[in-house]
Amino acid sequence: MTTIIRGGTVVNADRAFRADVLCYGDKIVAVGENLEAPHSALVIDAGGQYVMPGGIDTHTHMNLPFMGTVTQDDFFSGTAAGLAGGTTTIMDFVIPAPKQSLLEAYHTWRGWAQKSACDYTFHVAVTWWDDSVHADMGTLVRQHGVNSFKHFMAYKNAIMADDETLVKSFRRSLELGAIPTVHAENGELVFQLQQDLLKQGLTGPSSHPLSRPPAVEAEAANRAIAIAGVLGTPVYIVHVSCAESLDAIARARANGQRVYGEALAGHLVIDDSVYQSEDLEYAAAHVMSPPFRGKHHQAALWHGLQSGNLHTTATDHCTFCAAQKAAGKDDFTKIPNGCGGVEDRMSVVWDAGVNSGKLTPSEFVRVTSTNAAQIFNMYPRKGLIAVGSDADIVVWDPEGRRTIAAASQFAKGGFNVFEGRTVRGIPSTTLAAGNVVFQRGQLMAEQGAGRYIERPAFAPVSAK
Amino acid sequence: MTTIIRGGTVVNADRAFRADVLCYGDKIVAVGENLEAPHSALVIDAGGQYVMPGGIDTHTHMNLPFMGTVTQDDFFSGTAAGLAGGTTTIMDFVIPAPKQSLLEAYHTWRGWAQKSACDYTFHVAVTWWDDSVHADMGTLVRQHGVNSFKHFMAYKNAIMADDETLVKSFRRSLELGAIPTVHAENGELVFQLQQDLLKQGLTGPSSHPLSRPPAVEAEAANRAIAIAGVLGTPVYIVHVSCAESLDAIARARANGQRVYGEALAGHLVIDDSVYQSEDLEYAAAHVMSPPFRGKHHQAALWHGLQSGNLHTTATDHCTFCAAQKAAGKDDFTKIPNGCGGVEDRMSVVWDAGVNSGKLTPSEFVRVTSTNAAQIFNMYPRKGLIAVGSDADIVVWDPEGRRTIAAASQFAKGGFNVFEGRTVRGIPSTTLAAGNVVFQRGQLMAEQGAGRYIERPAFAPVSAK
Amino acid sequence: MTTIIRGGTVVNADRAFRADVLCYGDKIVAVGENLEAPHSALVIDAGGQYVMPGGIDTHTHMNLPFMGTVTQDDFFSGTAAGLAGGTTTIMDFVIPAPKQSLLEAYHTWRGWAQKSACDYTFHVAVTWWDDSVHADMGTLVRQHGVNSFKHFMAYKNAIMADDETLVKSFRRSLELGAIPTVHAENGELVFQLQQDLLKQGLTGPSSHPLSRPPAVEAEAANRAIAIAGVLGTPVYIVHVSCAESLDAIARARANGQRVYGEALAGHLVIDDSVYQSEDLEYAAAHVMSPPFRGKHHQAALWHGLQSGNLHTTATDHCTFCAAQKAAGKDDFTKIPNGCGGVEDRMSVVWDAGVNSGKLTPSEFVRVTSTNAAQIFNMYPRKGLIAVGSDADIVVWDPEGRRTIAAASQFAKGGFNVFEGRTVRGIPSTTLAAGNVVFQRGQLMAEQGAGRYIERPAFAPVSAK
Amino acid sequence: MTTIIRGGTVVNADRAFRADVLCYGDKIVAVGENLEAPHSALVIDAGGQYVMPGGIDTHTHMNLPFMGTVTQDDFFSGTAAGLAGGTTTIMDFVIPAPKQSLLEAYHTWRGWAQKSACDYTFHVAVTWWDDSVHADMGTLVRQHGVNSFKHFMAYKNAIMADDETLVKSFRRSLELGAIPTVHAENGELVFQLQQDLLKQGLTGPSSHPLSRPPAVEAEAANRAIAIAGVLGTPVYIVHVSCAESLDAIARARANGQRVYGEALAGHLVIDDSVYQSEDLEYAAAHVMSPPFRGKHHQAALWHGLQSGNLHTTATDHCTFCAAQKAAGKDDFTKIPNGCGGVEDRMSVVWDAGVNSGKLTPSEFVRVTSTNAAQIFNMYPRKGLIAVGSDADIVVWDPEGRRTIAAASQFAKGGFNVFEGRTVRGIPSTTLAAGNVVFQRGQLMAEQGAGRYIERPAFAPVSAK
Repeated sequence: MTTIIRGGTVVNADRAFRADVLCYGDKIVAVGENLEAPHSALVIDAGGQYVMPGGIDTHTHMNLPFMGTVTQDDFFSGTAAGLAGGTTTIMDFVIPAPKQSLLEAYHTWRGWAQKSACDYTFHVAVTWWDDSVHADMGTLVRQHGVNSFKHFMAYKNAIMADDETLVKSFRRSLELGAIPTVHAENGELVFQLQQDLLKQGLTGPSSHPLSRPPAVEAEAANRAIAIAGVLGTPVYIVHVSCAESLDAIARARANGQRVYGEALAGHLVIDDSVYQSEDLEYAAAHVMSPPFRGKHHQAALWHGLQSGNLHTTATDHCTFCAAQKAAGKDDFTKIPNGCGGVEDRMSVVWDAGVNSGKLTPSEFVRVTSTNAAQIFNMYPRKGLIAVGSDADIVVWDPEGRRTIAAASQFAKGGFNVFEGRTVRGIPSTTLAAGNVVFQRGQLMAEQGAGRYIERPAFAPVSAK
Repeated sequence: MTTIIRGGTVVNADRAFRADVLCYGDKIVAVGENLEAPHSALVIDAGGQYVMPGGIDTHTHMNLPFMGTVTQDDFFSGTAAGLAGGTTTIMDFVIPAPKQSLLEAYHTWRGWAQKSACDYTFHVAVTWWDDSVHADMGTLVRQHGVNSFKHFMAYKNAIMADDETLVKSFRRSLELGAIPTVHAENGELVFQLQQDLLKQGLTGPSSHPLSRPPAVEAEAANRAIAIAGVLGTPVYIVHVSCAESLDAIARARANGQRVYGEALAGHLVIDDSVYQSEDLEYAAAHVMSPPFRGKHHQAALWHGLQSGNLHTTATDHCTFCAAQKAAGKDDFTKIPNGCGGVEDRMSVVWDAGVNSGKLTPSEFVRVTSTNAAQIFNMYPRKGLIAVGSDADIVVWDPEGRRTIAAASQFAKGGFNVFEGRTVRGIPSTTLAAGNVVFQRGQLMAEQGAGRYIERPAFAPVSAK
Repeated sequence: MTTIIRGGTVVNADRAFRADVLCYGDKIVAVGENLEAPHSALVIDAGGQYVMPGGIDTHTHMNLPFMGTVTQDDFFSGTAAGLAGGTTTIMDFVIPAPKQSLLEAYHTWRGWAQKSACDYTFHVAVTWWDDSVHADMGTLVRQHGVNSFKHFMAYKNAIMADDETLVKSFRRSLELGAIPTVHAENGELVFQLQQDLLKQGLTGPSSHPLSRPPAVEAEAANRAIAIAGVLGTPVYIVHVSCAESLDAIARARANGQRVYGEALAGHLVIDDSVYQSEDLEYAAAHVMSPPFRGKHHQAALWHGLQSGNLHTTATDHCTFCAAQKAAGKDDFTKIPNGCGGVEDRMSVVWDAGVNSGKLTPSEFVRVTSTNAAQIFNMYPRKGLIAVGSDADIVVWDPEGRRTIAAASQFAKGGFNVFEGRTVRGIPSTTLAAGNVVFQRGQLMAEQGAGRYIERPAFAPVSAK
Repeated sequence: MTTIIRGGTVVNADRAFRADVLCYGDKIVAVGENLEAPHSALVIDAGGQYVMPGGIDTHTHMNLPFMGTVTQDDFFSGTAAGLAGGTTTIMDFVIPAPKQSLLEAYHTWRGWAQKSACDYTFHVAVTWWDDSVHADMGTLVRQHGVNSFKHFMAYKNAIMADDETLVKSFRRSLELGAIPTVHAENGELVFQLQQDLLKQGLTGPSSHPLSRPPAVEAEAANRAIAIAGVLGTPVYIVHVSCAESLDAIARARANGQRVYGEALAGHLVIDDSVYQSEDLEYAAAHVMSPPFRGKHHQAALWHGLQSGNLHTTATDHCTFCAAQKAAGKDDFTKIPNGCGGVEDRMSVVWDAGVNSGKLTPSEFVRVTSTNAAQIFNMYPRKGLIAVGSDADIVVWDPEGRRTIAAASQFAKGGFNVFEGRTVRGIPSTTLAAGNVVFQRGQLMAEQGAGRYIERPAFAPVSAK
């Protein structure tokens, strides 16, 4: 299959330039002005449009069993929705139960992911510790292309990693050339605040943000960074939602430490007023952790992306339907945590970031694709429009508009936190591995077409 | 017994002024110019000298069983040494073993302290948690005048309090109107670094500071402050030794949180070059936690006292002799942690702080006495020269000099971290409870003369 | 005249305690429980009330010729209004025109101030530089009890001091033992932004805050602090209105520098939405510099008072009536800058600060009176309830309420920025120099009763 | 002329990869593995070596008339020395005298630069202001490819720009799509401190750093950033030498502002002990502004490069010989300011940065070449190894060693601040515009071969 994208402006993280892009098989084979292509080639007209590396969503949970239920989107529906939004690679999570073998869990998730429509790869969570975990981490890195491990500092009595586990796993990651990542919330404080609120009879979803204030997140971020700094390993903080966490990152980076931060599309544009809704179902639909924050935090997160203190954008796509959310009707701590977004991230970030002048198109590419590929060692296969890179490409129509609505989305769950938002800047065509999988509203995603991406370890990067 | 101190300059935290001070019994009964006194009164000539509230050392360990041995100074020798240095009140620590009843430990310490020569009071450590601890905290506050609880975030597998204990004890403190205090070092990191160093064969005392770098302390300080902030309780950080911990305090204070910090005289003037000594006994004699730090940290700590981000000065007086320190000859983690100083703090802080222009005499009083009395609710009984206050007074000769030497000190242990330092500014006379207990080098401390000071709870101070 | 205030709680900056206060002549002569008083003594019942040092407003402009007109309040009406609000000392400003002799201006202001009803003292502005200014500064300090000099970094083409003047005047202040103070706004930027706005036809009062954004203030604060730091002099920043300026102060203080900051009652509770009013007269009535700020700045200023990064509260009382404000009807740069408040500061700060738990009563006294007295060397004559201090006392009824209204105020100008605000916590009685000058709504201020307060130079405090 | 560089590892800012590089004429025409080349092609064996974009020194002064004399290096000797060190483009400065036409000065410098051996371009200084300056800036941008203007905030009574000039020139730059740059030192403070030191008889070179402490630089940096922020223009701070200036940059960047910073090779590795030398000629040879700083500032600058708060490395190459420096024998303020380094920057930064693990090779390329090309709009012509880019290439031998010595350098002036330093990592071959100009110690630079590089304006980047 040969495809040529003609007449667009290629946007990479370092610059934008007029060029055609020729794809053959799953690769980009030429980039240049006025390229020749075989007659048989599929021609995509990108006139007046941008041609960008497909998005990488660094944080999704497809098919996730969590809080007693399973997310609505499985690996097919979720990745297909991603393709519709211009995202061509997802990074999902293998989350072993405490005492479960990491390898066993890994293979379970690999099985679930077979049906993916786009390329995928896994962070593997370290939720407990013994010698087998130490050994399995080695096997995962050396034999399975895993180079990032996730640690939940929240969810006490479930998957929370205590300091001992953090210290041991971070050290092991350093030995292996893998990068530790953390969900930063102090689980003890969350637990105590939850108990307090429930005791006061404050059982509704408006209690959710009160149980997880910014200081709870900032503490954990600071702690993970300190542990990484002392041990000399880089660290990546997932879903940074507030100014205080970002400050912890900025302080460490200014001190020369290699710390990376991820912002969610939702946290960038939605504030915590959603939890005050009298429609409790609506409020519950927004329950995720960390929660949405007050308005000044949104400004701070944008500053983080602008300054290079935050690096990636993601969604934490994790969809539960209203019936599932209702499990917490009488107790907000039982509402399954999670919201969607994999389909909307690229447009939301473009609309709020590029249209407002906060980000240039190249910076958009950097925070939606390139940085992720570099931090997690998929570059230049991913994250770049260049000869030899994967033909994961989004043709971006900066003047196209779409009004986001659950009713018209491809993702499941029946809800969308961006409902009603009209974005300017949408994918007109998405190519994944050289195939046109989405075009002008038509989704042609193919179940099982996605490949598992092995991400080799790197030589550990010193924080010194 | 009536005593009149004539002709000096009274220095309180708010101002200095010429006045005589008349004491009767254990109280100050008049402060003013040209006071009349009975013929029988003892007259102390304070011409050319300062008359200041006796020092409060907020952090001592007399008679402490620790790391398999007991400190050299008991409550008599230690408090007597304090009086020789102008310190008239000590705040010592009750440290229950894990699972030991707090009340039982409290009574044990009360027994040991009977022989004190100066007034004393206790912080009580919370080293574990169950319902009895919760109950005992209440009894201590309500019936025994304890309003501060100590938490060790270091010393894993011994007295370390984990986050759950911190959260529960901080909340209980808030209910009771007591203030939590913390020894801030991340015990997991210390443990890991110790194991690493030992594995590398680095068993000498020079490994001690490497196992407890500033980031280890700063992490714990930040965490304790975050927990306090989230729960709405004030917090007091003991022995702040480095710029990074101080930064955590300054950030929280600038955000309106009630956080207090304590600096040790040793940390203010001694740097970490002591651990590089080829005389391993000398190096081991300096092993304490947190360790002495690089030079720029000393500058930072002074800035902390100047700016009001640090509030008190103390010593962590905890004396072990060379034979005791030798327990760690082949393994630095077994060196009993501790150094002396109760006898020298006032002069060291004056000499380095006031003579250099960093602090005014009133600021000196604030950081050596008044702030401690206020934070721990002993004010105005302590910390002030005023009618009705305890006659705990030091007459300070700003031109007097002394060369500090273990050979001539009153404290035990046979070592002095300030050895050889000549200080300008020394007590000429110390009064405790109205009695002259030290004068021009003569120590007249009386065993058992010290009183236990009850410190009532305060209405909890909101951090909001 | 003997007066005894019975049964109240005396509140000083360091503590609160039950005591009667006996005044004779203009002094406090006894403080204690159950004091005896002559039968002839006036008895004031302070049961259930606080007895506090009279307020010091560190920043007023009475009788000020400014922007082509003169303020409504002269030294009598303005100080009388202050007394009604519990303020017993004002610090006003002598502002020489460029090239005018400082001494000449000083004497002019002294003349105007003869009619003051409460004690007063002057900061003298340095608006230009030559050898005569250098000489006059010496005369003012040595012969006239002036120990603070003011510098306007704004008001280009009028009274703005450039860097050369700042550097020379700060150095001269250091020599003399005086403290430099600054109005911190970058005058060049203000001027440029004003021109830009006018060119765009944005001539109304809503342009006022746009011409003076926080960054304009923060730049100047940072610069003044840097100059002071390099030269080794303390510095006092007047009317700190925004988080960014406060940050500059906090940074310098954390670095050990002696920097002081003043917050205005208005800036503490009023936000910039006032400039959006469709009632342009209302908007213009709020035009002052720095302007009112967005809500998060109010939170920051309170944090500043709580943390000790801000020290005093004032009003910048400077009243213009609607007719005067109308001079800028077609050009916001011609609206006379200024608002009132001397009558309301104490109640506004108490209500918003103490009733909310942000400040204790002692901290209230510190930021409304004691710190001002200490920084400007009027302590302990002012700022303290103690034997020998001036009998400037406010008896404070914490349960008393008042709804602030221009219609019922004593101050002139016909407007009040706090209009409609009901405060809980009001003066029931004010004594000035031992005389009852306000009681339960009755103002008995006497024209000319106020005294000029000489403030001696201090030995310069080193920032090193 | 065709040249093929075989067998090396191409290092760009985004990644390193094995490839041959084929150059034809002045361009790179192919990059890939196992490239074919004509038989006639010159083959350079890069086995075991890195192939990197030639260095861009963003800050040189060749042929500069300054302080009454002219630098030793003219545009030929200086650029030739640069080529020997792997630098293939310099950015020099046109510095009009006050009242001199910018265009006239520009043409003068263009004349002097005709003899350059490598490509060059100019920042043009704005040292005064009137309408002609406003007009000339437009002409320079639109007709002469100048997109950066320089402002000296120091050098009072000479070329110092006051706030009015800064504000007007920054605004004009914004209109034109040019970027303002500043030499950040508060000229008033420097002047005052110089006078003080001279008055005290401290006339030697050791007074130089005392007259320009870090706070003097940080103030100016903060001010320039504030002005840029308020006006909405990006800003570039040249020769950031101290932690405090860097903090100002980091604060602004964290707040989303587009601020860039430049570090000098000398400031990165040399500390202020050089000024204490008893050899006054040696000390004077190090006199430059800002001066060398205490050791912790070097650590801070490296952190700046690591964190992305600093972007470029330069030298401020400005060579005066001992006889010229002697002009300040009796008055340090008359020592011509300047040091060399254009020949050594690349090796010094590699050796201290890459060999120590602080920077990866890609990061080295970023801070020595790519960022400069991007910020000043020469990318991808400069700063990148890619098809179509200029064939400005350095083949880097990471194991090659050189001991820096004035005796063996190509630059003039007879002195080298890096004297005696042995660096590991040196250029083995330098190509400029496709020509081999340096190889294994042999310099083949050709006078006049350098081209003037036009740098088009960019659409102004918003700081909002």
